[in-house]
Amino acid sequence: MIKLGFDIGGTTVKAGAVDEEYRIIRKLARPTPKCDGAALCLLIADMARELANGDEISALGITVPGSVDKEGRIVAAVNLGLFDFPIREKMEKLTSVNEVIVRNDADAAGEAELALGALKGVNTGLILTIGTGVGGCLVLGGRLFHGGLDRGTELGHAMLDRGGMLCGCGHRGCIETLCSATAIRRLAEAACREEDGMIRELAEKGREVDAKLLIDCAIAGDGEALRLFDEYTDALADAIASFVNILDPEVIVLGGGVSGAGDFILDPLRKKVPEKCFFGSCGKILAAEAGNDAGVIGSLI
Amino acid sequence: MIKLGFDIGGTTVKAGAVDEEYRIIRKLARPTPKCDGAALCLLIADMARELANGDEISALGITVPGSVDKEGRIVAAVNLGLFDFPIREKMEKLTSVNEVIVRNDADAAGEAELALGALKGVNTGLILTIGTGVGGCLVLGGRLFHGGLDRGTELGHAMLDRGGMLCGCGHRGCIETLCSATAIRRLAEAACREEDGMIRELAEKGREVDAKLLIDCAIAGDGEALRLFDEYTDALADAIASFVNILDPEVIVLGGGVSGAGDFILDPLRKKVPEKCFFGSCGKILAAEAGNDAGVIGSLI
Repeated sequence: MIKLGFDIGGTTVKAGAVDEEYRIIRKLARPTPKCDGAALCLLIADMARELANGDEISALGITVPGSVDKEGRIVAAVNLGLFDFPIREKMEKLTSVNEVIVRNDADAAGEAELALGALKGVNTGLILTIGTGVGGCLVLGGRLFHGGLDRGTELGHAMLDRGGMLCGCGHRGCIETLCSATAIRRLAEAACREEDGMIRELAEKGREVDAKLLIDCAIAGDGEALRLFDEYTDALADAIASFVNILDPEVIVLGGGVSGAGDFILDPLRKKVPEKCFFGSCGKILAAEAGNDAGVIGSLI
Repeated sequence: MIKLGFDIGGTTVKAGAVDEEYRIIRKLARPTPKCDGAALCLLIADMARELANGDEISALGITVPGSVDKEGRIVAAVNLGLFDFPIREKMEKLTSVNEVIVRNDADAAGEAELALGALKGVNTGLILTIGTGVGGCLVLGGRLFHGGLDRGTELGHAMLDRGGMLCGCGHRGCIETLCSATAIRRLAEAACREEDGMIRELAEKGREVDAKLLIDCAIAGDGEALRLFDEYTDALADAIASFVNILDPEVIVLGGGVSGAGDFILDPLRKKVPEKCFFGSCGKILAAEAGNDAGVIGSLI
């Protein structure tokens, strides 16, 4: 008997076979078929056969970048081009596996952190996942919280900057507009247009202008990059301080690519959040631990 | 056997004897002695004797406008001028009542709404109390939430308007700066300076320029007052929509003096919050029910 987890990304389907302790023992990755639910299901079934390698599959977990209902139906996954698609039902038929679990990606990351990572044993916790947007989830009473009306939480769309920049959700001034990796990229792009310095220099040499470029230049000590990074952590600290005033979590976890900068981003937050929040102090600020495998593992927990 | 509740306000100590169903059967009120814990305790003991009227007191509840620790000590109650004052210990000694409960006023209001009011039976709920500041509390898992580190919640100090007006807490752009009754008063004061119209007219006749004046003029149909009231409910709807995106409560309760305007304030919020929040819809928006007696009853529940 074996458990298989699938993390369906906009570009890649990552899959893994896990043991009893949720350690990944075999891995696979394939390009994601776009806007084609049937092709996606066939691919998953195919990868499952390869990963199972003759073993019986006891559970199949599927993590989706979008909203999922209780029946394991994808309500909307914009980046997959799938809407109102009954992926659990299809996979049950295709694989004859009894236990097929379908989870939103933020929830899967939350379950992984809660079971094995930075939120283990925590009663009140917050995860902010910094990527193209800002996602995240809440742990309340030691369990993942799905919102009072069971529609999930949209932490990145809490308001931070009333009347500010237009957000992808159609409203203005959401946390996401100032705290996503896209916001860092925007700062890097402005630096390329307006300033001499390392960011522009590396961009002219062909480096992609993204969040990583700005952070790398800041780590290397470039003054302009450091100033912009400070501007970014200021906004992120404002957002976290706001959550502290509402929920005062024991642990605040930073996930997503940006959290890979480790203490370089965590240390300024650890200094700024206590200064910015009502209480003058806050819970621990940690990096997500489950990392790249969170989507694979978190679908099964 | 009788239970007595005391609501210690900055101006008045309100007290009540309640029956088994938390209905108030006798009431008393006295001016609050300021900056004098000993005098306050003696007053409470005195009022308790008068209210008990010979009956044995089974429980004494005390609601305080400030922070309270687990030992029933007032940590800080600015408007009473009391800091680090062991009010529970003092009252136990003075009255020989075994059960003395000391509660923060927002918590007491929350307990009252939860037990008897608009949050009865609710699993995930939010109360925003609009007064001089913006207070409030959260109901999570059907119980009052005291924050992950047990320091309470400071909903009015969640950020709404980054870099905006300076708040009493020392930070900028808190919900409180735009959504308190003080914010409404500020709009009314500006109207008096700058505009002809009913607000100015009534102010010149001696009406106090406060939130109630603006709301009364808006209810009377004055164009300028209606425009300013719309500006205010816009900010408040932004704040509530932000909480909806984070917690998606089943019920959102508006408390404090402003909620006395009833549907006149609730109806614009019921229209605006769904438009402003991520989900396009939200839980019920209701007025607090426990009202003026929440402090007396909520200290005992």
